[in-house]
Amino acid sequence: MLYLIGLGLSHESDITVRGLETVKKCKRVYLEAYTSILMAADQSSLEKFYGKEIILADRELVETGADSILEGADKDDIAFLVVGDVFGATTHTDLVLRAKELGIPYESIHNASVMNAVGACGLQLYQFGQTVSLVFFTDSWKPDSFYSKVMENRKIGLHTLLLLDIKVKEQSIENMARGRLIYEPPRYMDIAVAAQQLLEIEETKQEKAYTPDTPCVAVSRLGSPTQTFKAGSLKQMAEYDAGEPLHSLIMLGRQVHDLELEYLYQFVDNKDEFKKLVEADQEYFKPPAWVPPEEDDMSD
Amino acid sequence: MLYLIGLGLSHESDITVRGLETVKKCKRVYLEAYTSILMAADQSSLEKFYGKEIILADRELVETGADSILEGADKDDIAFLVVGDVFGATTHTDLVLRAKELGIPYESIHNASVMNAVGACGLQLYQFGQTVSLVFFTDSWKPDSFYSKVMENRKIGLHTLLLLDIKVKEQSIENMARGRLIYEPPRYMDIAVAAQQLLEIEETKQEKAYTPDTPCVAVSRLGSPTQTFKAGSLKQMAEYDAGEPLHSLIMLGRQVHDLELEYLYQFVDNKDEFKKLVEADQEYFKPPAWVPPEEDDMSD
Repeated sequence: MLYLIGLGLSHESDITVRGLETVKKCKRVYLEAYTSILMAADQSSLEKFYGKEIILADRELVETGADSILEGADKDDIAFLVVGDVFGATTHTDLVLRAKELGIPYESIHNASVMNAVGACGLQLYQFGQTVSLVFFTDSWKPDSFYSKVMENRKIGLHTLLLLDIKVKEQSIENMARGRLIYEPPRYMDIAVAAQQLLEIEETKQEKAYTPDTPCVAVSRLGSPTQTFKAGSLKQMAEYDAGEPLHSLIMLGRQVHDLELEYLYQFVDNKDEFKKLVEADQEYFKPPAWVPPEEDDMSD
Repeated sequence: MLYLIGLGLSHESDITVRGLETVKKCKRVYLEAYTSILMAADQSSLEKFYGKEIILADRELVETGADSILEGADKDDIAFLVVGDVFGATTHTDLVLRAKELGIPYESIHNASVMNAVGACGLQLYQFGQTVSLVFFTDSWKPDSFYSKVMENRKIGLHTLLLLDIKVKEQSIENMARGRLIYEPPRYMDIAVAAQQLLEIEETKQEKAYTPDTPCVAVSRLGSPTQTFKAGSLKQMAEYDAGEPLHSLIMLGRQVHDLELEYLYQFVDNKDEFKKLVEADQEYFKPPAWVPPEEDDMSD
């Protein structure tokens, strides 16, 4: 049996009771270690918590070595651990499809991911549009496919959750060219860099998907003991020091509800200023005012 | 301290290890018992699992009795349990705001909710637009605000998760009028009723937000041992017996990816037929084909 088990966001003990019982009975335990990290735990603390050895599964292993992960899973139980939820930030559907081809049954044990836990900032999950990803710009590569998606969300008044790039076990171009398996230190995009990249693309495109004054919420270390929210303008976010990773960013949509706003006031520097930003931003993509239909001339 | 603790979707043991440790140390434990249910557990099995008495918190208690829930939380630990995630299907932000007013610290312990676990059907969470709710129609009340939201999502090619109505501890109009605290048996909207209501509103509006042939995925008992997915047309869904609750429904958007489709094929009656449905549905809201700009006349 293949078990796909979500680990939640931060602590060893964020695994579910059922997840932990399952890990303990598995013959081999893999940890998917390239799309996210647990903020308050690492391989050795997890091994201690489970009383089990963990095999780190990097991108190569998951994408090309599925059969070695699944080896013997027709007879033995194998666990595949994923930070957040099993099919959360990325999909592990290929591994499941391969298991099915091999006649290996599978079961998912779900957990929290940033996609639902982000409701903790007080914005309603119902009011979010599509989630987008922001990757690190380089001098020559500034992917901006997020821009039209943010525009689409904001046109219909919805909030946007922006997931920020994580680079784990990346090679430099030089090392890759020379075939040297030397990896760069991990990098996690922070709020300030994300906001600067957003501003840079708006500067180029000038289509006003958002402006420097668009209200945002910085989400730092969601689900960890030092979880922090900060609400302010995109411009303010570009100078905000959000501290240790992981970070996400939310850009508000026009349809922000009074109850949402009331909750966000906990996280602002100046309530009146923030309210003004929200009101000004609501003028963008405002649907035209309703005009009563012309009355038929009843005299004839 | 007020602890808001997500319970996940199905089993007693879907609570996280940290959540369980916290419940065990709390002086009083409330279970929010009106927005959802745990599918494979009930009050008494939870009480046995926690070794604790549970106080059921109905809508009245949560919405008007916050102070009684919070009583003594400045000194003692109080747990407030929510099926799914803490701020998932509904918000419990009012309780948190009241705690803050009273100077009571709070902490959230997150868990899976339908909003992220639904990724288990193979559709990517990134490709979902806003989530909408469907409530039971009556003869005189057929709320259709979902319609324009589904339209908005589908116009930009996104999938829509439709959450289906749950009626727990509802009074009949007669009993309410007479002030009798007699409650109706719980009702959970099933896939077929949801699809029939969707078809009824499309029939009335005729704006083609979707058609009887629009591809959908029925999600039954997500996260429980009998979890089932079924993919087919909306028309097929209107006759589909999805079995025991809880159910949700997904309506596909145009941007369905080949990998998503490959995964969905596990859940169809006829692969070719489903593929045809998807291809036909992709014609709706298709953006106009790209036309190269006219070349400047270089001869002059």
